[in-house]
Amino acid sequence: MREVLIEAAFQLFMENGFERTTVDDIVTRAGVGRRSFFRYFPSKEDVVFPEHERCLTEMSAFLTTSTDGEPLDAVCDAARLVMRMYAANPEFSVQRYRLTREVPSLRGYELSVVHRYERTLAHYLRQRYAGDRNGALRAEVQAAAVVAAHNNGLRAWLRGGGHGDAAKTVDQALTFVRQTWDDAGESAESGGTASAPEDDVIVMVAPRGAPLWRVVQKIEKTLGDE
Amino acid sequence: MREVLIEAAFQLFMENGFERTTVDDIVTRAGVGRRSFFRYFPSKEDVVFPEHERCLTEMSAFLTTSTDGEPLDAVCDAARLVMRMYAANPEFSVQRYRLTREVPSLRGYELSVVHRYERTLAHYLRQRYAGDRNGALRAEVQAAAVVAAHNNGLRAWLRGGGHGDAAKTVDQALTFVRQTWDDAGESAESGGTASAPEDDVIVMVAPRGAPLWRVVQKIEKTLGDE
Repeated sequence: MREVLIEAAFQLFMENGFERTTVDDIVTRAGVGRRSFFRYFPSKEDVVFPEHERCLTEMSAFLTTSTDGEPLDAVCDAARLVMRMYAANPEFSVQRYRLTREVPSLRGYELSVVHRYERTLAHYLRQRYAGDRNGALRAEVQAAAVVAAHNNGLRAWLRGGGHGDAAKTVDQALTFVRQTWDDAGESAESGGTASAPEDDVIVMVAPRGAPLWRVVQKIEKTLGDE
Repeated sequence: MREVLIEAAFQLFMENGFERTTVDDIVTRAGVGRRSFFRYFPSKEDVVFPEHERCLTEMSAFLTTSTDGEPLDAVCDAARLVMRMYAANPEFSVQRYRLTREVPSLRGYELSVVHRYERTLAHYLRQRYAGDRNGALRAEVQAAAVVAAHNNGLRAWLRGGGHGDAAKTVDQALTFVRQTWDDAGESAESGGTASAPEDDVIVMVAPRGAPLWRVVQKIEKTLGDE
């Protein structure tokens, strides 16, 4: 029933445009009653994005179990759930992408969905960073960055007609975000010397004018601290 | 006329709520005709956010003239225009903040406005990074990060009743974003050794297992390169 309504709706949106298609048109084409439509979809906009509620639920469930590892890695993995939902049905995703670009009310709907994903990621990061200085700020900035990168990759794939590898395109974009904070890493937090997140790298910061013996002393101290 | 309509509208929103106030109520209270309202405001939502159009125009104009300096500094300065608009009228801003949290259609309106600011910043950064590898991606991620940080600071100020120093709160949040990319900086781009963006700091990266003599050699080489 639900699938039949989605298919009927998209046929009509493609034929007559989103605005000119009514819920009555959709149920007539699908051969079901008007009440059936509203049992599945609160509004005409919802039928365009039928999988986001499920995906939001999956994302929350995934994050609830992600208590170990790097918080930023967990939210990148969570964002990939959205990419996978799009990639599971390239043709439908590309159709919807084109439709959404043309219809202001759909763009508004999409913005609100993206905002809910971002809030879900930020909520998770705030919990992981609880007690850190600037924890909430870091959580919100990183969630926004992950969503922006994910959407940059996803849009590139959609613009390409959904023909390429969505996972690869989105992964490349997410790698940019992870590298940003890997590189900023611990040394930025504490100042002076500190070990980098990776196991095999040391990052050393010293005043440019420092004499070499003092730089060496600092390295020896850092190595001794490990 | 415009100011009178805004004041009448807010009185009524506070007294009766946003949903229960009609445009007819507003023009009656303001003592003007219905057509006057729509001359200034396309919808009831627009009267709640009367300054954003002007601010968006100012932001674009400011960025058009910002062709020198660090691109990220320019977008942080541009974002501050929004904070200043809020800080110019703390009482009104706090009232609106409370109203927006309660009314879904206003939250939707606000999301679309925030999205327009973000697109304006991203558009500027894309131009500044044109030709760079990952330029568009970097532009979109940084724009999202700046907007998230700005809004984190602004919301903290609004939650505090608009009593503190909005500029200070927002500046602290924006500093976090600028430090993120300062620290990731050049060394992340080129790998190995490189000078940090600040004039008086050197960043050195070496394998953790490297013998000390090789680390020193690398420092000497770096210092020699300066």
